[in-house]
Amino acid sequence: MNFTGQHILSVNQFNRDDLQNIFDIASRMEPYAKRQLRTKVLDGAILGNLFFEPSTRTRVSFGCAFNLLGGEVRETTGMQTSALAKGESLYDTARVISSYSDVIAMRHPQAGSVAEFAEGSRVPVINGGDGANEHPTQALLDLFTIQKELAAFAQKVDGMHIAMVGDLKNGRTVHSLSKLLALYKNMHISLVSPNELSMPSYVIDTLENAGHKVTISDKMENNIGADIVYQTRIQEERFDSQDEANKYRGQFRLNSDIYTKYCKSNTVIMHPLPRDSRSDANELDNDLNQNPNLAIFRQADNGVLIRMALFALTLGVADKVDKFQCDVPWVSSK
Amino acid sequence: MNFTGQHILSVNQFNRDDLQNIFDIASRMEPYAKRQLRTKVLDGAILGNLFFEPSTRTRVSFGCAFNLLGGEVRETTGMQTSALAKGESLYDTARVISSYSDVIAMRHPQAGSVAEFAEGSRVPVINGGDGANEHPTQALLDLFTIQKELAAFAQKVDGMHIAMVGDLKNGRTVHSLSKLLALYKNMHISLVSPNELSMPSYVIDTLENAGHKVTISDKMENNIGADIVYQTRIQEERFDSQDEANKYRGQFRLNSDIYTKYCKSNTVIMHPLPRDSRSDANELDNDLNQNPNLAIFRQADNGVLIRMALFALTLGVADKVDKFQCDVPWVSSK
Amino acid sequence: MNFTGQHILSVNQFNRDDLQNIFDIASRMEPYAKRQLRTKVLDGAILGNLFFEPSTRTRVSFGCAFNLLGGEVRETTGMQTSALAKGESLYDTARVISSYSDVIAMRHPQAGSVAEFAEGSRVPVINGGDGANEHPTQALLDLFTIQKELAAFAQKVDGMHIAMVGDLKNGRTVHSLSKLLALYKNMHISLVSPNELSMPSYVIDTLENAGHKVTISDKMENNIGADIVYQTRIQEERFDSQDEANKYRGQFRLNSDIYTKYCKSNTVIMHPLPRDSRSDANELDNDLNQNPNLAIFRQADNGVLIRMALFALTLGVADKVDKFQCDVPWVSSK
Repeated sequence: MNFTGQHILSVNQFNRDDLQNIFDIASRMEPYAKRQLRTKVLDGAILGNLFFEPSTRTRVSFGCAFNLLGGEVRETTGMQTSALAKGESLYDTARVISSYSDVIAMRHPQAGSVAEFAEGSRVPVINGGDGANEHPTQALLDLFTIQKELAAFAQKVDGMHIAMVGDLKNGRTVHSLSKLLALYKNMHISLVSPNELSMPSYVIDTLENAGHKVTISDKMENNIGADIVYQTRIQEERFDSQDEANKYRGQFRLNSDIYTKYCKSNTVIMHPLPRDSRSDANELDNDLNQNPNLAIFRQADNGVLIRMALFALTLGVADKVDKFQCDVPWVSSK
Repeated sequence: MNFTGQHILSVNQFNRDDLQNIFDIASRMEPYAKRQLRTKVLDGAILGNLFFEPSTRTRVSFGCAFNLLGGEVRETTGMQTSALAKGESLYDTARVISSYSDVIAMRHPQAGSVAEFAEGSRVPVINGGDGANEHPTQALLDLFTIQKELAAFAQKVDGMHIAMVGDLKNGRTVHSLSKLLALYKNMHISLVSPNELSMPSYVIDTLENAGHKVTISDKMENNIGADIVYQTRIQEERFDSQDEANKYRGQFRLNSDIYTKYCKSNTVIMHPLPRDSRSDANELDNDLNQNPNLAIFRQADNGVLIRMALFALTLGVADKVDKFQCDVPWVSSK
Repeated sequence: MNFTGQHILSVNQFNRDDLQNIFDIASRMEPYAKRQLRTKVLDGAILGNLFFEPSTRTRVSFGCAFNLLGGEVRETTGMQTSALAKGESLYDTARVISSYSDVIAMRHPQAGSVAEFAEGSRVPVINGGDGANEHPTQALLDLFTIQKELAAFAQKVDGMHIAMVGDLKNGRTVHSLSKLLALYKNMHISLVSPNELSMPSYVIDTLENAGHKVTISDKMENNIGADIVYQTRIQEERFDSQDEANKYRGQFRLNSDIYTKYCKSNTVIMHPLPRDSRSDANELDNDLNQNPNLAIFRQADNGVLIRMALFALTLGVADKVDKFQCDVPWVSSK
């Protein structure tokens, strides 16, 4: 796939070569994200960062990634500030707003809306999450993290054992990640959740059709001795009531004791964040914060690299990033 | 008029020479807006983009225009975040905020407030809309669009036939545009609206005193065979109730059939946007989207050019834009 | 104190040498803030401007200061847009958000929260106000203003007479300023407030323990013949009811008549702003606006200088600002 000028709307767009292409470029972004190098390859380009649904970290991650390539960011947050309320179609909004930008990152509460917007847009649109539907940059950063973390132990994505734990019914990230895992081979995938919050069957089918071994359980104990444990938050906002959500919050707590007992010595712990640190949920205990295999913050860091890669690709400068280096006189703590 | 250091508060400030000056510079901005060229003439300058009333597209258009000249943007949106709520005068707010910026674009819900703010400001203030009062950049971009579109048919603003259609009572843009049209000669102006939403008589007087022929009707049929049809939205938010507004929504629909029947073969269609695309309003049908004379998105594009011109003029760099060109390594879809 | 990489959380961090260091650098920032010079020393650096509680002027002042040094700004405003609502700890938020920035300015409604955030942050955090607790940049700009204004009359902070007037109980700024004044010598400090809104006794103790003479009164008349009069607003938002606040609003009005009668000919008037200009409060009358000793807007200007100094110090470039100068082709009204 030639990414220049293309929309990034769904994980379904990618084959394994595309993923490897994105990950290779993301890796080359690391010295820039760590402020060891500085580039101005996107100097003068404008990102339209349109968050019709608030999401501080995803929004800032996109904006930061664009700044790190030298570009400018124009933002909008929230629905009420939008002409959509006056009956404007997404097509019209897209025609107008895309005239201000060179690339757009967009989040919207309604499934399908980002793709609809993209039809009217004159510049590439990157889906930053459209309701329960897609959040492709999250899936990419998750898989990129898995690949990097495993590489540190000379392991590969093909053949790994991954356990997904928690609210597998409502967690959008595990669905999207699973679609990408279906491009790989010979995995063992343990699905651990309360029966009522189990992985949708169409996702399980996708994984099994790819030839992966899938095991299902409502207990962590003998199912998290994996290469990767991908823990998730009970998505309380998707439940009918807080009481209903509270039935499940706190059921699958991972802490140092449990880790020592049931994980491997180098099991990598991931989480899409935010983790619920309140005492009645506490799905990843703070006593794991010093565990070197806790990858959750590296995962967030990788989000910047993935977004830098996608901007560089869609704007056709992936090969020019290094050519536009410049000095960094200031001292960063990175 | 020497624009350097001046506020842009009202269309009443301009004579025809001023307009031509603005339009000439706006035209020279086009290769920059289209990303064929890049300039840094405003490198290091800061725009204070103060939207005390939300308006995504106008806010982003101002910000984008400033970025395209190389400047930085600091923004504020909404009333609640303001010290005005603690009893601060607009004069004080202006003294303080203007110390942070080199030029200010401001929208405020109250008529007259932008002019009041400008009295305290130490830097030029550009009115981005003050309630029902003024929105000079919209009037400028409308007239600029008319001039450009007519030029494509070797026609001029003097002597043209323009039909304004819809809610002519509450539509601020048609009032401001009319003030500017009064600077030109020998027009035929057709005003088409429900009787209850007709153009205020002081506007009609202004047009007639300028020597224009004004015809008034509550029917589109024989009144839109004009050079320009300027369609507007029923401004529902200005009505006592939604029911009251709904009486008028959908009365003057323009679509391909009507266009073919009653417009000229090259009648240019304009609209200040957003257009109400809901089925019960639908003032400009989507079946016109492929009509090359539908100028509504070019109109929005022109807004960026007009705002670039005003920034360049008020900051005294209109003649230096080309001197500060630099490379654009990235690929824009523009 | 070596500022590079350090958090700026409290006025308690500073000794007199630190203050003089900050003030010296702030003074050297003045030609940049006045647009006589331009620097790009922070080109490519990113400020995370996190305002979990809205404050237009402080937020914009931080952002503007960073832009004036050549850096980029990514912002977030408001609590609702934050993952904190989903149970995320401040530690986690800090780990993630700090990965996007090179330095963070943060305001938060809860006392202590900025320090808690700083523990998780990988980059320096500057406290922009944490509830009733600390607002160190305000105290620094206040003291910097006092020093500059007195210097114009060949006076020093040591030995000066300052009168603090108004709501001394709820006004955070007078508490923090007092802590800094305790580092100086031989002052006379007049505290003028309603008895019910008097300065907390721990602050008075601090001032007296430093050897200053403190006089307390509920009348302005014979207490404002000082070198500096620091007027404050009745902090109505901290009262149980508007009625309760209204008992005090308007009690200590300073206007030209009072100034002529009771102040010295060159008494400098300060105020942390916003001033309440409504007729029933009017703590600093507009008839003082032409008085050359009204320093309130110079005070706000100084805020930019102080914040520029703190950014330059924490990012280790205080000595490099002049080396990265560049041209300013545009004309500022400053």
